[in-house]
Amino acid sequence: MPIADSVLLTDLYQLTMLQTYHAARMQEMAVFDLFVRRLPAERGFLLAAGLEQALDYLGNLHFTAEELDWLTDCGRFNPSFVAWLETFRFTGDVDALPEGTAFFANEPILRVIAPLPQAQLVESRLINLLHYQTLIASKAVRCVLAAPGKLLVDFGMRRAHGAEAALLAARANYLSGFAGTATVLAGMQFGIPVFGTMAHSLIQAHDREEDAFEQFAAAQPGNVTLLIDTYDTEAAARKLVGLAPRLQERGIAIRGVRLDSGDLAEHACQVRRILDEGGLNQATILGSGDLDEQRIAELLAVGAPFDGFGVGTRLDASTDAPTLDMVYKLQEYAGKPRRKRSEGKATWPGRKQIYRRSTDDGTLISDCLSLEDAPQPGEPLLQPVMREGQRLAPPESLSAIRERVQQQLTALPPALRANQADPPYPVEIALELREMAAQIDREMH
Amino acid sequence: MPIADSVLLTDLYQLTMLQTYHAARMQEMAVFDLFVRRLPAERGFLLAAGLEQALDYLGNLHFTAEELDWLTDCGRFNPSFVAWLETFRFTGDVDALPEGTAFFANEPILRVIAPLPQAQLVESRLINLLHYQTLIASKAVRCVLAAPGKLLVDFGMRRAHGAEAALLAARANYLSGFAGTATVLAGMQFGIPVFGTMAHSLIQAHDREEDAFEQFAAAQPGNVTLLIDTYDTEAAARKLVGLAPRLQERGIAIRGVRLDSGDLAEHACQVRRILDEGGLNQATILGSGDLDEQRIAELLAVGAPFDGFGVGTRLDASTDAPTLDMVYKLQEYAGKPRRKRSEGKATWPGRKQIYRRSTDDGTLISDCLSLEDAPQPGEPLLQPVMREGQRLAPPESLSAIRERVQQQLTALPPALRANQADPPYPVEIALELREMAAQIDREMH
Repeated sequence: MPIADSVLLTDLYQLTMLQTYHAARMQEMAVFDLFVRRLPAERGFLLAAGLEQALDYLGNLHFTAEELDWLTDCGRFNPSFVAWLETFRFTGDVDALPEGTAFFANEPILRVIAPLPQAQLVESRLINLLHYQTLIASKAVRCVLAAPGKLLVDFGMRRAHGAEAALLAARANYLSGFAGTATVLAGMQFGIPVFGTMAHSLIQAHDREEDAFEQFAAAQPGNVTLLIDTYDTEAAARKLVGLAPRLQERGIAIRGVRLDSGDLAEHACQVRRILDEGGLNQATILGSGDLDEQRIAELLAVGAPFDGFGVGTRLDASTDAPTLDMVYKLQEYAGKPRRKRSEGKATWPGRKQIYRRSTDDGTLISDCLSLEDAPQPGEPLLQPVMREGQRLAPPESLSAIRERVQQQLTALPPALRANQADPPYPVEIALELREMAAQIDREMH
Repeated sequence: MPIADSVLLTDLYQLTMLQTYHAARMQEMAVFDLFVRRLPAERGFLLAAGLEQALDYLGNLHFTAEELDWLTDCGRFNPSFVAWLETFRFTGDVDALPEGTAFFANEPILRVIAPLPQAQLVESRLINLLHYQTLIASKAVRCVLAAPGKLLVDFGMRRAHGAEAALLAARANYLSGFAGTATVLAGMQFGIPVFGTMAHSLIQAHDREEDAFEQFAAAQPGNVTLLIDTYDTEAAARKLVGLAPRLQERGIAIRGVRLDSGDLAEHACQVRRILDEGGLNQATILGSGDLDEQRIAELLAVGAPFDGFGVGTRLDASTDAPTLDMVYKLQEYAGKPRRKRSEGKATWPGRKQIYRRSTDDGTLISDCLSLEDAPQPGEPLLQPVMREGQRLAPPESLSAIRERVQQQLTALPPALRANQADPPYPVEIALELREMAAQIDREMH
């Protein structure tokens, strides 16, 4: 895990509840499910992401001396409880969807079975980690679906919500099928390919635009992509054509240009024509500027000759649906199924599994949410990933997750593959699960 | 700065541009403004926040040996450039709006004057830091305006976008007038008051709801707030009334209850009546569950007897406006004003100041954006905060920033104080500034 973590990155009530469990000696095994209650109206499916960081968090969970001192000094916790926290570790079992798996409302993407205090404490950060990457992967994959065969690059760092969001967005985008990111640290920490062009400021700092192009091209060992919309897009494209022979003499090839403002489709057509007529047929055109899957689809639908897109703000903040209704709920304690019945927020109890049915050629038909001990037809999706606090396998490579995503996309029903949220994908609730819920409700009355 | 930072948390193009500046010996002074191009349609004003973290970032800027090795190995950078980065530091000047200052479109909230490579490199992270806290402070203050005299607590950690967002949201919310946060680490790192109630899981883990209430109350040294909507809200309130005498005998007072689901206004009225009739007149009612300033205003408008609110997801992701169009643009290089003219994205050149005019009783009238050497009537807002890379003052206390925000709110025109975005607050562009822009445009043709 590249990001500094702290066990105190949690909600206060987790600690006051732990103090209660400690005082009441409530240490029996608890089963918690992490799931999304409803999909955003704009999403037909979600992609599970963030498991790697979640497992790393669980594996490293502990209180430092400084944190224990702070807990003592804050005056809310008694000495025997704080002393008990000194050796607190996560020793539970985790089952989860592999990263990159498509999923739907009410389907657990992660299940924790652990002594109640352990399973409780980790709620806030587990949601925080799985929520964000799942949110972003589910947005990024829509861009991937909208732009088949195009180069997609994450440009979102600056308006992602903080440092960790910027880093984890780069990871979520890449596993969803993006070619890479502009965020350098994500390249260093995750091995993600890093892309970049140039900013308007470099152009502005030169008195002549063509001088800026030449200086920038000369300073880069590899091929360069030049930004041509600072003053007059088509004029800049013509300058580039004029400059190309001199650059070629110096052994510098122009890989492409970037357009970042104005009528992108119109500019792309004009620029393509200018470049082609000037012999720069190989130079690619990259679009950027407030793009998302919808805008990309519109540009491609009118035949705008873009070879790729830089997607930033709308991606890394998932602006059309900036949060998911992701929760983590107790489903069993001390061997007894439990059910929250708050209005509009009731949950399905017990130890569950998701069974996914497909056609012979692999296209998804429907899912069934069932009790683990009442198997249904189809492939079970939740897989064991941690036992007694130990990971069962080394971290999965990002390339393996990328392959899984591509397989998933091929298997999606046509409406989902077309980025449509309707008709909703069918998720059945198995009879045994409905009966268990009804039984709990009867006992509560 | 409590959060691990890295100079490589930047966009690749900053580094390739730096290599260009290094090769071309472009080291003259550059002036960059950081500002918001347009306010979101839902916002009448924004609150500047995040300066403390931005200055800390600038003050600590350097490349570690590991980072330099990675840059060498990635194959894009030549040895003399990487060697030059070894001693790279930020030695520039910064002027900024004090945190908690209200501001509007096109007004610089931070200005950097530094040798071009330094001023360039810091763009991505400066936006990343100032964007998020400004976004959240500007959302939080709307909740503060909507709920005068009510206790407001940040509950948003779990669905904030990552760890840093969760921490910095707690800070931004607190400086805007929230009473505190549920995020424990924000208490430890920023000294923000920490609040908490209990989760449904603690109730569910007990066979009887009243046992859960009693165990939880008994385990907390102070007063407790109990969550009463897990099964039947009014029934739980009555259980609490029945339980209160026994708790009082043990010296435990019930501070209040929390409602998290269903028709919050209706439940609050019923629960208030039950608590009052049961002698628990002092017990407060806290509301939570998908709240924001609009929902809070609706609840208070119908007279729902809430004493406070926990505000989470919609606050820490600012869901109605999850990003700001915040940019950082070159306005002068080597003593010469510069202007980007990209379609729809033209900027105001030169070294600028904001002048704010108020009535005699302090109510804001209008702002004027002008050149620094062409002063206008009113109070200049940008203040020097860093010279030659050194901070001019120690970090401002959060309480001082909180006071500034409260003063600002008193001074807002009535429409802005009522959370209305119309009519827009007037920001004039001074004649001298318009003439400078026109002059640059003429020279470019």
